[in-house]
Amino acid sequence: MVLNGVGVGRSVAVGPTLRMPEPLSEPVDEVATEPQQEAFARVQAALTAVSEDLSARGEKAGGQAQDVLNAQALMAADPTIVEDIEARLGDGKTGERAVFEAYAGFRDLLVQMGGYMAERATDLDDVSRRVIAQLRGVPAPGIPESDAPFILVAHDLAPADTALLDLGKVMGLITREGGPTSHTAILARSKSIPAIVGVEGAENLADGTLVVLDAAAGTVDTSPSEADVLDARQRIAERAALAAAPLTPGALADGTPVPLLANLGSADGAAEALAAGAEGVGLFRTEFLFLDASAAPTVEEQYVEYERMLRAFVGKKVVVRVLDAGADKPLSFLNDAPEENPALGLRGIRALRASEQILIDQLTALARAEEAVNGAGVLGAGRHGGGGAGERVDLWVMAPMVADADDSEYFTTVARELGIQVAGVMAEVPSSALVADQIFETADFVSIGTNDLTQYTLAADRLLGSVANLQDPWHPAVLRLVGMLGRAGRDAGKPVGVCGEAAADPLLAVVLVGLGVTSLSMTPAAIADVRAELARHTTVEAEALARAALKATSASRARTAVSRLAAANAVG
Amino acid sequence: MVLNGVGVGRSVAVGPTLRMPEPLSEPVDEVATEPQQEAFARVQAALTAVSEDLSARGEKAGGQAQDVLNAQALMAADPTIVEDIEARLGDGKTGERAVFEAYAGFRDLLVQMGGYMAERATDLDDVSRRVIAQLRGVPAPGIPESDAPFILVAHDLAPADTALLDLGKVMGLITREGGPTSHTAILARSKSIPAIVGVEGAENLADGTLVVLDAAAGTVDTSPSEADVLDARQRIAERAALAAAPLTPGALADGTPVPLLANLGSADGAAEALAAGAEGVGLFRTEFLFLDASAAPTVEEQYVEYERMLRAFVGKKVVVRVLDAGADKPLSFLNDAPEENPALGLRGIRALRASEQILIDQLTALARAEEAVNGAGVLGAGRHGGGGAGERVDLWVMAPMVADADDSEYFTTVARELGIQVAGVMAEVPSSALVADQIFETADFVSIGTNDLTQYTLAADRLLGSVANLQDPWHPAVLRLVGMLGRAGRDAGKPVGVCGEAAADPLLAVVLVGLGVTSLSMTPAAIADVRAELARHTTVEAEALARAALKATSASRARTAVSRLAAANAVG
Repeated sequence: MVLNGVGVGRSVAVGPTLRMPEPLSEPVDEVATEPQQEAFARVQAALTAVSEDLSARGEKAGGQAQDVLNAQALMAADPTIVEDIEARLGDGKTGERAVFEAYAGFRDLLVQMGGYMAERATDLDDVSRRVIAQLRGVPAPGIPESDAPFILVAHDLAPADTALLDLGKVMGLITREGGPTSHTAILARSKSIPAIVGVEGAENLADGTLVVLDAAAGTVDTSPSEADVLDARQRIAERAALAAAPLTPGALADGTPVPLLANLGSADGAAEALAAGAEGVGLFRTEFLFLDASAAPTVEEQYVEYERMLRAFVGKKVVVRVLDAGADKPLSFLNDAPEENPALGLRGIRALRASEQILIDQLTALARAEEAVNGAGVLGAGRHGGGGAGERVDLWVMAPMVADADDSEYFTTVARELGIQVAGVMAEVPSSALVADQIFETADFVSIGTNDLTQYTLAADRLLGSVANLQDPWHPAVLRLVGMLGRAGRDAGKPVGVCGEAAADPLLAVVLVGLGVTSLSMTPAAIADVRAELARHTTVEAEALARAALKATSASRARTAVSRLAAANAVG
Repeated sequence: MVLNGVGVGRSVAVGPTLRMPEPLSEPVDEVATEPQQEAFARVQAALTAVSEDLSARGEKAGGQAQDVLNAQALMAADPTIVEDIEARLGDGKTGERAVFEAYAGFRDLLVQMGGYMAERATDLDDVSRRVIAQLRGVPAPGIPESDAPFILVAHDLAPADTALLDLGKVMGLITREGGPTSHTAILARSKSIPAIVGVEGAENLADGTLVVLDAAAGTVDTSPSEADVLDARQRIAERAALAAAPLTPGALADGTPVPLLANLGSADGAAEALAAGAEGVGLFRTEFLFLDASAAPTVEEQYVEYERMLRAFVGKKVVVRVLDAGADKPLSFLNDAPEENPALGLRGIRALRASEQILIDQLTALARAEEAVNGAGVLGAGRHGGGGAGERVDLWVMAPMVADADDSEYFTTVARELGIQVAGVMAEVPSSALVADQIFETADFVSIGTNDLTQYTLAADRLLGSVANLQDPWHPAVLRLVGMLGRAGRDAGKPVGVCGEAAADPLLAVVLVGLGVTSLSMTPAAIADVRAELARHTTVEAEALARAALKATSASRARTAVSRLAAANAVG
């Protein structure tokens, strides 16, 4: 049988399943026999223990997981909830029941509020269960123990569960609940564990069932044939082999170069990107410098990070995106006003125009870092092994969420005034593609963010499961916008890159090139697959694939038409 | 001096200002002298009185205002808040202080949650102030009393204030706070009171200052010259005169017909629309049948309403939009899952595809209503005075939020199977314009919803003040999409209407016609202005205006270029 869900990532896993323990029973609403004072003392001790345990797990996990766990630790120690529990004990409830009711009350309140609440309600439930387990003296619900590697099956995972997953043991994740925005999905992505969420029927999987989990297809095969298992193992091996292929520059079969670049979130990923054969960085996200900070970092603080990153890519191109923040990733010093639709709010270049000093500081730091690296060329290259004598880093800087010619003129003017040599814009807002001719009057280049471009063009939240069918960069409407950008770039004689998820889909990457895209930037793990696919098609073939995709009446028809045509090309 | 803000509506007001009373002082945190029991009884009485007062005001106000006031009445009686107050009294707080702290605590909780919370926090503050005023025995904060009409100046208005505005007295509203999404704006819009919100400096206006409030321009002139006042009065008179002009069908100067239709939210507006010269209904919203209902209305219930509405327009065209709901206007039986970006969520045709029976019932009721009216043509017309013998109503039905050919094929197939003769789609999602050629393969017509189309094309929430500069249907990117739809309609030989705010802007209406739009639908109050402007331009001139708008590099430049060219045409 094949179960379907929403896949996270693109990899495959084969292995036996193991289920999370059954959830705790709900505390019975019975008359308390324990004196109220003693019950309250016991509850307080349990709350403290759980809060400390969550903090400790957070410290061990680090990163994004730590934020979530620390938030939970605060929920366990929240004085309003403690007061609420005390009041319920005063009403004659047992300790367990008082804890249960207090958290359930707040949970309902959150759910009624709507908005961001669904996720937090789950977090609160998890804290409640941990406190009740502590009161009962039973182990907290969590990941089962096993000597052999396994694929974990759960109703849903709480942050505390996913944060401490043993990567040597858990080969994959299957959950009944959860969409692409659930903690399970987010944390699985950050840990690179293949996962399928929202799988109906997952609860019926007996422990030890050998399954094939295919994240790219979003399927769990619960009764694979021997051939299926061999095929899956071969795909796992192929992915490993591709990653080990020679690191040639990206190019079509006729030799047309298509530089393959890496998307990076900090300088730490530089070595991995170079090892994967990245010919530079196509999207360097700078948010890491700004998150968890109460004020924007100083020019000097930024300069140090940028210089480190630029030195790692001497002899190559690095495209830096200036701060992309908004109400969905709020920074108190930039924009923390509540917004009903943060994706349609004050974010990207809009927020920077409203807080111009942050933009000026960042561009100043970038210009200085470039000058330091290129001014110290020979010495720097010798010291850091970045390339031969005289090699320079090629710094390009771009602004996110540029809507039109006005945004582009504003950003490129400010950037050039501050010493940036090459200034461009990201095309994520549909309007930017529609007026691409006007944007190229000031922008030196355009980089297409296909995730957001798809989200806005189809008006479908990229993180919302119920409209997932519309979030497909293969959609002809999205590809027509890419085509407009490609044509405008060619007319202006300027480059058009892609740095969204679409560039990591090998066949779609060929279509994008056929539409006029001149470089592709992606997660380093995808470079090998894309390099291999590009090498199978000429420019003429890529353009024919693009025409077939544009003519299709849906994303899935576009994918099918292009797959067939590509297979025919390969045969021919 | 001229103060600037966000205008609500397009009208003008001239009159003396009057300020809302100063807010109540914050209760001091001092030791309570009153026994706890007595204080609690007094607080409970105050909460009950305020809750009942708010309910009563709601009943008097009715409609949308009643929902808001009833929600506030519930907040005043909320048991969690009562418990919280009691706990604070137990800690030795005074009654006023306990009330203040309890509401403030919940307010902070809401604000921290983000999302929809900003508005609700204001509502909670208002309830808190009313309870404290009740405890102090002073009048609740509210609208000042005056014998003469005035323009009300306030920091911000609470729903309870706006709900009971005396329309004979309040000529306009000016508030310091509030964006286009605030209660002040929403309720001012529903009461047709000219308003400017978010006006910095409003707090300094002395009572009795004669001001000119221009909602279209978003300005308050606090020291108008005599000429300014005369000019404003003349504009008010002109608007009144235009409304009284002869009711000819909409047409360009060369006689090309451009039917002028009405946007209606229920059959109640039919008489007003016909009086304004509406040549039919271009957008009949059906949400009124579904709101405030725990289940979808039955086929019979819907049939009765549709028949009533269709009979009012015998001899004319009526375009009905099927239910347009989503997480932003949640219906428990359709989609009440919380969404982070409701505007990008499961709404419109997407939600109906997920709950198909609701769509089937609605289309069934519409088909039956049409059959009843047209089958009983002569008799019906005679009885209702809708037109000559044999006149029929021309029912068109369309689906909201159609993204592509797949959505269009789905909707038009279902509609035709159920007996609908003319089935079309709304173009609100940018993708629909990009693949308009594919959509016209199944749709009989397209109606452009410029509000949402602008919102998505520029990725700027139509209700968010901080990105208001991007929410302009004059933007060349939006107009280029309209042009694509116009061309695709002409190629397919099918009509393309506009039913968004853009159709109500006289000069923009001419540009839309120049882009290939064949009919315009708007709030009835705007029909006279648009009819007058259309009659001033030929088709050739409208096309020239459209070309000028498409070439402009921003919305404001497009508006300026077209205004200049139109003025030159008028002179020539």
